[in-house]
Amino acid sequence: MSFEHNIRRVVPYVPGEQPNQPGMIKLNTNECPYPPSPKVEEALKEMDAGQLRLYSDPTAAELIDALADRYGVDPAQVFVGVGSDDVLAMAFLTFFNSEKPVLFPDITYSFYDVWAELFRIPYQICPLRDDFSIDIEDYIRPNGGIVIPNPNAPTGLLEAVGNLEKVIAANPDSVVIIDEAYIDFGGKSVLPLVEQYENLLVVQTFSKSRAMAGARIGFAIGSRKLIRYLNDVKFSFNSYTMSRMSLAVGRAALEDEDYFQKITAKIVETREWTKRELAALGFSFPDSYANFIFATHERVGAERIFAALRERNIYVRYFKKPRIDNYLRITIGTPEQMEALISALRDIVK
Amino acid sequence: MSFEHNIRRVVPYVPGEQPNQPGMIKLNTNECPYPPSPKVEEALKEMDAGQLRLYSDPTAAELIDALADRYGVDPAQVFVGVGSDDVLAMAFLTFFNSEKPVLFPDITYSFYDVWAELFRIPYQICPLRDDFSIDIEDYIRPNGGIVIPNPNAPTGLLEAVGNLEKVIAANPDSVVIIDEAYIDFGGKSVLPLVEQYENLLVVQTFSKSRAMAGARIGFAIGSRKLIRYLNDVKFSFNSYTMSRMSLAVGRAALEDEDYFQKITAKIVETREWTKRELAALGFSFPDSYANFIFATHERVGAERIFAALRERNIYVRYFKKPRIDNYLRITIGTPEQMEALISALRDIVK
Repeated sequence: MSFEHNIRRVVPYVPGEQPNQPGMIKLNTNECPYPPSPKVEEALKEMDAGQLRLYSDPTAAELIDALADRYGVDPAQVFVGVGSDDVLAMAFLTFFNSEKPVLFPDITYSFYDVWAELFRIPYQICPLRDDFSIDIEDYIRPNGGIVIPNPNAPTGLLEAVGNLEKVIAANPDSVVIIDEAYIDFGGKSVLPLVEQYENLLVVQTFSKSRAMAGARIGFAIGSRKLIRYLNDVKFSFNSYTMSRMSLAVGRAALEDEDYFQKITAKIVETREWTKRELAALGFSFPDSYANFIFATHERVGAERIFAALRERNIYVRYFKKPRIDNYLRITIGTPEQMEALISALRDIVK
Repeated sequence: MSFEHNIRRVVPYVPGEQPNQPGMIKLNTNECPYPPSPKVEEALKEMDAGQLRLYSDPTAAELIDALADRYGVDPAQVFVGVGSDDVLAMAFLTFFNSEKPVLFPDITYSFYDVWAELFRIPYQICPLRDDFSIDIEDYIRPNGGIVIPNPNAPTGLLEAVGNLEKVIAANPDSVVIIDEAYIDFGGKSVLPLVEQYENLLVVQTFSKSRAMAGARIGFAIGSRKLIRYLNDVKFSFNSYTMSRMSLAVGRAALEDEDYFQKITAKIVETREWTKRELAALGFSFPDSYANFIFATHERVGAERIFAALRERNIYVRYFKKPRIDNYLRITIGTPEQMEALISALRDIVK
């Protein structure tokens, strides 16, 4: 016997590599290649450091009200957290307490099974079809909850709102989480459905389309009922999750809709250019609606390309996992970065 | 049946009131009356907002290394989180998984039983003696973990390191958490014991003595083994808890030891002055080593004083709970604020 007997043991999750090489082209963690809105910089410069002595508003009202405005919902339908990981972790803890398994795809965001293991939630993975699309029928059976990312990661594939609605409507006894971390790059959100389905929780983030991964802001929108339960658990975990700095920069970002539209459109444009170039080099990929492309080459192995890019100081993401170990996930950078990538790939696969 | 069947239901914790009245004297949430170090303001002004597009360092190395330096331990012995509430919540989740009850005092930080309820951890409260001191013998019996705040809140009483060491030494099969949120106001820390006892975790915060409640930074120091387990769980919950902003301002605060010494000494000086004045007005109180005083009046009821102070725009904390419902917890403010408080109290209890 020792104190180790009562320790919660988990297989430690290893976050993706965060290299910091001079001159590197970093296309490995789906960050935005553009800075956040200039209003974010202003908010930071104008912050009164003296106010940091005071607790932040536990209700995060300034950020929640701005999100409610932006998405046309009531503030009582909005929840915020320390990145969408915090929001999702709280949602798993709050909503997934059944003895029936929680369902999610086999190829998906790598944290779902990590949270299930951490909170000892039973789960069952639903294999994607060969083309990486979701078989909606897999989610129409007894379950303790459902989480589906849309677009999916790392595939980039977008599911039609109508298909997701079938899942939500078929599961009135479960909370259905649609994880829309990448929805702003051309996808159509299920957000309008939150008025109709009390069991739907939509999760989004400032880390990708708002260019603020380092500010740690995620949010969820759902029915008043779900948000109330989520807040009850959150207030029992940590009342003050959002710092005064995060609240201020988050609100500032929402004040600049033009900038948001401009950078997301630019990333979509660069993505479509990159798709054409990759195809011309012999790559194939699901038709991505995210800020990355999940590509495989007709001749050269993904792991070899990954290593060769790395030698050229270009970092993409490679997952040594069943079914996807011949794919690379390539974040969309600036046009210049993608030209450099294509030029390197041309050389590597020639 | 409905999705509500599988929701984790908790009695929602209600955070202390955060009033925001013009000209108010806010002595209700143990915040520091002084701004953070000028180096914090510099760090904020110098932050490159463009870098917010990138994820923060998941290992929080810049902050952890600075803490390790400051406290003379190895970085592998340091853990950081979003305020000490986040650190304590992670510690409960990681270390308290026994079927035996976790032990803590009856009058104490109001979050311990909230976390136990949230994570469904059995617990047993150990009543303080009549003078609010801890009976060490209460903690020398079978248990699934121990958490003791030192100084205790809301009493402000300090326990001798030797007594706490008896508890730690007597419980090699349990993790013992000493919550030192208020240790910097004249108390003696158990930190030197972490080298000797692998089962000891010491938790501290930037919210009080570092004047940064709004930056959300807490930390724990313990054995390499405990910190490794804590990190395993944290990385399974949310890899990126600390924003780039919190990391930068946290490190900056640690660079200004002189300022830290100056403001904590000033608060101790004001506290001792306030004790003398309160005693002269007929108040009694445990001998506080924290940045607050827990006081009761010989004639006038605490709830009445609380309301009368509030009418004068002075906010203190009143807990309507057994054993302490005739006490007020009064945060130590600036000398001017405490003079205004004493003058108001003189009028109220006359």
